[in-house]
Amino acid sequence: MPNYTALVTLLAVVLYFYTGLLVARARVKFGVIAPATTGHPDFDRVFRVQMNTLEWMPIFLPLLWLFALYVSDLGAAVLGLVWIAGRIVYIRGYTQAADMRHRGFSIQAFASGALLIGAIAGIVWRMVHGG
Amino acid sequence: MPNYTALVTLLAVVLYFYTGLLVARARVKFGVIAPATTGHPDFDRVFRVQMNTLEWMPIFLPLLWLFALYVSDLGAAVLGLVWIAGRIVYIRGYTQAADMRHRGFSIQAFASGALLIGAIAGIVWRMVHGG
Amino acid sequence: MPNYTALVTLLAVVLYFYTGLLVARARVKFGVIAPATTGHPDFDRVFRVQMNTLEWMPIFLPLLWLFALYVSDLGAAVLGLVWIAGRIVYIRGYTQAADMRHRGFSIQAFASGALLIGAIAGIVWRMVHGG
Repeated sequence: MPNYTALVTLLAVVLYFYTGLLVARARVKFGVIAPATTGHPDFDRVFRVQMNTLEWMPIFLPLLWLFALYVSDLGAAVLGLVWIAGRIVYIRGYTQAADMRHRGFSIQAFASGALLIGAIAGIVWRMVHGG
Repeated sequence: MPNYTALVTLLAVVLYFYTGLLVARARVKFGVIAPATTGHPDFDRVFRVQMNTLEWMPIFLPLLWLFALYVSDLGAAVLGLVWIAGRIVYIRGYTQAADMRHRGFSIQAFASGALLIGAIAGIVWRMVHGG
Repeated sequence: MPNYTALVTLLAVVLYFYTGLLVARARVKFGVIAPATTGHPDFDRVFRVQMNTLEWMPIFLPLLWLFALYVSDLGAAVLGLVWIAGRIVYIRGYTQAADMRHRGFSIQAFASGALLIGAIAGIVWRMVHGG
């Protein structure tokens, strides 16, 4: 069983859940009442932090697990931790200013790209060598 | 194979798909033409029902499957059914009034928390005891 | 290992990532600055292309993998390619006009329905016949 990847998955899910908590707190702070999802520039950026992380979950999680199953559990977990670190930088940056979202975004995109390339290589290797 | 969890997954996916049908119906009823996603308070709440359920799918499904694989197929399925029941209460409440979204939300959040705690315990147990 | 389904999953993830690139390009072209997600009709449709594809990822991916694990790797991959083809038709249509989103949407919904029916049959078969 890919234990390390399983743990990193839980970490990523908890971090993503935390972006939802940030939105709930920003709703109260900036007076944006549900079901509205805009209304104050500072709220809008926090909402986009959650949405963008949501948008990347169906990219990150499949790549993470295909890498874990076809290449390496430990390798997937390390790249997963890089993705999580990038997301933390992204969350801290974007909640302060829209311009500050790029660095963390690039880190998590780099980690995802590495997972993709490794997963492709692992799957093709398995197809060629059987199994 | 985790048969019970597989069936509950299909149920959850179908329920989530149903929230998209509610939005399509509300588009017609309240005259909110695509690509707009706001325009009438009753539509806005139905749209948020779909969006919030979408937001929780990358929380619920990974937790459900890690619990199933590391702890118990049947246990995951039972907690998955609690999550689905909470979602139904949430959908029924939120489509009527924004204030009525809290009870169902709490039920599905409780089920997710139980899946998370069980999954952490199961993974750590496996790491300590090998396998 | 379900190698064909793994490859088709990567294709679907890359196509979905591409819808995010379309939004980034449309932001520049139509002057919609983050964190805004509306502002120009042509931008709004491109944004909905990404959002709708996001909305379907938690439907498509679980159905694809349950079909692969319970029925057939090759069958899942073929239906997955039909889903991807439908999504491409959807993206090309909806980015041109809101009315042109229906054909591609129907194709990918048909593929998802076939995956759902097959997955139900496969899981129930396994439960009845043991394993």
